[in-house]
Amino acid sequence: MTQYNFSAGPAMLPNDVLRQAQEEMLDWHGTGMSVMEMSHRGKDYQSIAKQAEADLREIMAIPDHYKVLFLQGGASSQFAMVPMNLFCTRKILHADYINTGIWSAKAIQEATKYGEVNIAASSESSQFTTIPAYDTWQLRKNSAYVHYTPNETIGGVEFQSIPETGDVPLVADMSSTILSRPIDVSKFGLIYAGAQKNIGPAGLTLVIIREDLIGDAMIDTPTMFNYAIHAKTNSMYNTPATYAWYLSGLVFQWIKEKGGLTAMSTLNETKATKLYQAIDQSDFYSSPVDKNYRSWMNIPFHLADKNLDPHFLERAEQAGLFNLKGYRSVGGMRASIYNAMPESGVDALITFMQDFEKTQA
Amino acid sequence: MTQYNFSAGPAMLPNDVLRQAQEEMLDWHGTGMSVMEMSHRGKDYQSIAKQAEADLREIMAIPDHYKVLFLQGGASSQFAMVPMNLFCTRKILHADYINTGIWSAKAIQEATKYGEVNIAASSESSQFTTIPAYDTWQLRKNSAYVHYTPNETIGGVEFQSIPETGDVPLVADMSSTILSRPIDVSKFGLIYAGAQKNIGPAGLTLVIIREDLIGDAMIDTPTMFNYAIHAKTNSMYNTPATYAWYLSGLVFQWIKEKGGLTAMSTLNETKATKLYQAIDQSDFYSSPVDKNYRSWMNIPFHLADKNLDPHFLERAEQAGLFNLKGYRSVGGMRASIYNAMPESGVDALITFMQDFEKTQA
Repeated sequence: MTQYNFSAGPAMLPNDVLRQAQEEMLDWHGTGMSVMEMSHRGKDYQSIAKQAEADLREIMAIPDHYKVLFLQGGASSQFAMVPMNLFCTRKILHADYINTGIWSAKAIQEATKYGEVNIAASSESSQFTTIPAYDTWQLRKNSAYVHYTPNETIGGVEFQSIPETGDVPLVADMSSTILSRPIDVSKFGLIYAGAQKNIGPAGLTLVIIREDLIGDAMIDTPTMFNYAIHAKTNSMYNTPATYAWYLSGLVFQWIKEKGGLTAMSTLNETKATKLYQAIDQSDFYSSPVDKNYRSWMNIPFHLADKNLDPHFLERAEQAGLFNLKGYRSVGGMRASIYNAMPESGVDALITFMQDFEKTQA
Repeated sequence: MTQYNFSAGPAMLPNDVLRQAQEEMLDWHGTGMSVMEMSHRGKDYQSIAKQAEADLREIMAIPDHYKVLFLQGGASSQFAMVPMNLFCTRKILHADYINTGIWSAKAIQEATKYGEVNIAASSESSQFTTIPAYDTWQLRKNSAYVHYTPNETIGGVEFQSIPETGDVPLVADMSSTILSRPIDVSKFGLIYAGAQKNIGPAGLTLVIIREDLIGDAMIDTPTMFNYAIHAKTNSMYNTPATYAWYLSGLVFQWIKEKGGLTAMSTLNETKATKLYQAIDQSDFYSSPVDKNYRSWMNIPFHLADKNLDPHFLERAEQAGLFNLKGYRSVGGMRASIYNAMPESGVDALITFMQDFEKTQA
């Protein structure tokens, strides 16, 4: 029986990538060494690191005046790094944040330590099941930056377009949506993402930052939280997460082979559309999310009778469908269907859902 | 031809560990999942994480009133985390540091951002080829902590005993010596170590902290730099470096199978003694380091004629001996011989050195 893993992250990785990593585990390209054993400053590892960056730049069409950093510490570290650096570089001590769920709220909470945070819009009153209409946003003209979360992993809401912020740099936590579709990087000042959804294994964090936003950090900022230090040293101020970086490079190559982000986008839209249709066509299942802002990546849904939840999860596992339990604050189910989830996995889930519904009739 | 990798880090890993990781890459214990794909909060990954901690506690005999944290960011992050947390918890804004080389100097530089640093002793005048005699140390009775670097990876000097600091907590950067020999953890307030020498792959940082030193962090400390947060959440405040944690667990099991730290200590002393003897018995090679403080892990040595350095390195590679080039500030050669370096690797190096010397006679 084929198994499918609907975990929100760490999540499925492409089988081809895991198989290549397995083959190369004890001997990378005839060097007789595992990638894990390589000095990060040696020529073999440097070639791996540079190729990964070049491939990412190609698939995301990252303009030359953006730096790509391969850091540690997850998006949670970026929640602090963004204000600690941008407030200082921009010489403005306040920023606008859009609150669309648990992850944007965490970014907001951390930023308040370092400056004044203006919550320009919030969907809290809808229990984060929608995105606040753009014409209600109270953006300030002279903010250091505007921060938003294009896809909320827990709530399952996703922006379908990039908000306009004029001259104020736009900062995005793309952890659970990066690489799922083409985006225009030039619309952003800074993009960050934890790796463990669409990039690679946990322990790596990507930062894509426009060069003019690399400047100085607040006094007392730890050296490791200073973008300028990492930019100047090509993310090798200290030893980076070398193996996770290498694995991410394999994922970038896999994306290229599959046809790049346009192909990913087509596949992701197809998968999500199918699953939402199956949910909407049934009275047994329902989606809590506004149809205009439904995530392609994280799809929460409820059973009409939540007493059946444990039974649904048990039967799902018997059918080879794992990690469908929803986040505790939302309840119900959540299917995370990142790039590595094949269409056959979504088909298997839909078939199972329909079969389960019948057995309960 | 057998190859040996003398890199200072990331460094050799035990072949048995890499082979097990290879076997389990696509299917950990019949789950059908790679460890990289597991939710860090699921029961499978929780069992991996807990087993790794239990094994580490066993091999290091860590007392119950110490917490073990599996973090990200390397020792370079600890250079800031230690003062940001301990100054606040201890309510004392100054600390004593022992300066024995490049790594302790980095720790000192970072700590000065957060409080007053007293350099209680320094071996700078010897160009860091020795350890300052303990009776010259100017320790203060009421410091927040005393920080030292038991083994300097670059200079190759190593403390052969644990300094006495009375009631003042002793903090140690053990990155390049942890797990190389038994130590009495109860003598320390806090031990930290980057993984990429004796623990596992880069991207993981171990912190062993006495519970009374977990308290509060300075205002403005990023959440991710707060020991209390990580202690309370068992290092799962956010997604940890799951795969590096798992690999480290395999290394801990390998150490147990090999006879624990006593066996490691015997092997490491044997390897180091052999290599220093070969260096000392020759006029062709020399060690810059005080015989009383020579590292078991990182062994710098010089050729009498440094013009032969490139030739030595080229011939060494032809003999399967890699990454012997010394750090640029020290020059010459450096052989890093961590736990995973078998005695046969040191034997091969000594044989090569003797052969090379003969060809130059």
